[in-house]
Amino acid sequence: PMEIVEIRCQTPGEVAAAMRELRIRGAPVLGQVAAYGLWQAAEAQRQAAEAQRQTAVGNLAPDAGAPGPAVPVPASSTAIPAAAEAFRSARPGVAPLRRAVARALAAWQAVGGDQAAPEVVADRLKAEADAIAMEALLGQARLGRTGAAALPRPRAVGGRVRILTIDETGALAGGTVGTALGVVTTAAAEGRALEVIVAETRPSLTGARLAAWELALAGVPYRVVADGAAAGLIAAGDVDIVLVGAEAVAADGAALAPAGTYPLALAAARAGVPFVVCTGSEAIDPDLAGAAELRPELRRLVAGSLAEPDSLSGPAADDTSLAAQPLHDITPPDLISAFVTDEGLLHPPYGQAFAGLAWPAR
Amino acid sequence: PMEIVEIRCQTPGEVAAAMRELRIRGAPVLGQVAAYGLWQAAEAQRQAAEAQRQTAVGNLAPDAGAPGPAVPVPASSTAIPAAAEAFRSARPGVAPLRRAVARALAAWQAVGGDQAAPEVVADRLKAEADAIAMEALLGQARLGRTGAAALPRPRAVGGRVRILTIDETGALAGGTVGTALGVVTTAAAEGRALEVIVAETRPSLTGARLAAWELALAGVPYRVVADGAAAGLIAAGDVDIVLVGAEAVAADGAALAPAGTYPLALAAARAGVPFVVCTGSEAIDPDLAGAAELRPELRRLVAGSLAEPDSLSGPAADDTSLAAQPLHDITPPDLISAFVTDEGLLHPPYGQAFAGLAWPAR
Repeated sequence: PMEIVEIRCQTPGEVAAAMRELRIRGAPVLGQVAAYGLWQAAEAQRQAAEAQRQTAVGNLAPDAGAPGPAVPVPASSTAIPAAAEAFRSARPGVAPLRRAVARALAAWQAVGGDQAAPEVVADRLKAEADAIAMEALLGQARLGRTGAAALPRPRAVGGRVRILTIDETGALAGGTVGTALGVVTTAAAEGRALEVIVAETRPSLTGARLAAWELALAGVPYRVVADGAAAGLIAAGDVDIVLVGAEAVAADGAALAPAGTYPLALAAARAGVPFVVCTGSEAIDPDLAGAAELRPELRRLVAGSLAEPDSLSGPAADDTSLAAQPLHDITPPDLISAFVTDEGLLHPPYGQAFAGLAWPAR
Repeated sequence: PMEIVEIRCQTPGEVAAAMRELRIRGAPVLGQVAAYGLWQAAEAQRQAAEAQRQTAVGNLAPDAGAPGPAVPVPASSTAIPAAAEAFRSARPGVAPLRRAVARALAAWQAVGGDQAAPEVVADRLKAEADAIAMEALLGQARLGRTGAAALPRPRAVGGRVRILTIDETGALAGGTVGTALGVVTTAAAEGRALEVIVAETRPSLTGARLAAWELALAGVPYRVVADGAAAGLIAAGDVDIVLVGAEAVAADGAALAPAGTYPLALAAARAGVPFVVCTGSEAIDPDLAGAAELRPELRRLVAGSLAEPDSLSGPAADDTSLAAQPLHDITPPDLISAFVTDEGLLHPPYGQAFAGLAWPAR
């Protein structure tokens, strides 16, 4: 990146648009942003109610002069559920987002839902968002240490562990440490000798643009390769371990991840190289039984950036820049050597390993 | 492409540079260009000898006035072998290039090598180049028909056969019909209902730029997808057959092909989708026993275009744009369902199937 740009989203619609357009991305961060986005919606409700109250007081006062302040948001009993739906449908494939929204909605219901006083709702949703963010912060720190401890030794004495990764799964995606890239930066900070091959991750180029930037900041030697070349490097013996993140993990261990992850798993399995999915337990969703319940998203490439598809029926013969691009693929559990999570290293069978996870269920 | 640019190469050095810089590419075309490049070198020798002769005649004539014409190329007994070596080393992985050079050198030796009269050498090398080009023209037409006949039926009545391919393997790469894309355009011309998914083929983008252009010209519906997404589309059931080309095929069937081909083979094998390598028999090299003899090439990305690496030692931590990019990967024979060649459809075991191929040996 040439520049760090702060995006200011003031309404649930703006937050949802930033999610849909991938300006905010990364499964753990999306959950946190959704939770704070619901608090933001509740705050707007609280302010709207306050403004209404002042207007009402003004109307009652016989000597009322100027009119009350402008009311930017009308109070609405459906504002919170509407924001929740906008966030969920912006990235339907991302489990941490869906689960953070579900958790915040449960908190909202617990204080009375649309019957509750707006200030009670706002306080409760802020507390829930803070809890989700704090759990992510602590969880990712544990995940990073667990993964660092699980890395193989270098093949040569005095050599480096050679890690292959895809997409950006570090601080930008996680909020603090991140997942797969968090393992890398944690291990590097612990003094492990590493080098990283990053798949550039077309069409978003999150690997080439973002992961590379984070690795450079962390002082970890790396090189970016074309996505198609990564499998050949695994087969050629250039990789000791593959570390990837996931947008959602089903109860049987099937993982929805950025397109290009699945072929890495195929190549790693054939070469006998460990293929490890690094993910917060909030991405492991007990409501999804297996691959059939995972929802890969599609985008169209419009002028080089990823847009949402208008229509996905059939190939676009006349304008390939508008062709639907799968944002995700699905890696079946038999190709996954282990999961590195905030609750430790989990081995197959995953159904059993996942059953004990503590992240608030459903 | 926005423009078709004709590159005029006047010396073996210019031809070799155009090969090395991938401005001329495509395995079959490289063989043809190398053969004509050797003829061009022989023509320069013939002209040099002619100029020397005229100068000698002028020196003998007592009334010689102006000096003879400029001699741009000195006659040299090593000009032909030197050009041969320049072409071979420009793309060491490409079997048709190496074999066309070997064939032209054998023809040169057959007429006396460096002892032969320059005009004899030039005529002989032109005849050999014409033969190689004509064989390619006829061979690719047969290959296209063989492949078209071998395509599966559409899954749905009235539906289209859904073909996945990578790189550009049509007329630009073949000289006339091409290989994998030649099968597509031949089948389309025969009236088969097809649609094509093209992997964009980073970093050269030969799929997105060149194959897409040829498919549009041929009126075949297509869409370009990121290389990483292709395996997931195979797994999702969106592909009926994978057709790819090859730069070199070993005697056991191992195929050197553009980076990104191997993961398609892995995904196709797992999904039970036919994975077919389409290649002229000149790419099937009996001198290469197996994968260990295939030579993947590397390039560095310099300012977005592929350059030859200066040094490939270790990762380039400070400038990833200079990182070595594998140009090829290797697909093992057990992942290849069949070969479509100018000599028919070849099934495993490939060692046996290849033994009868007629392309002039070694």
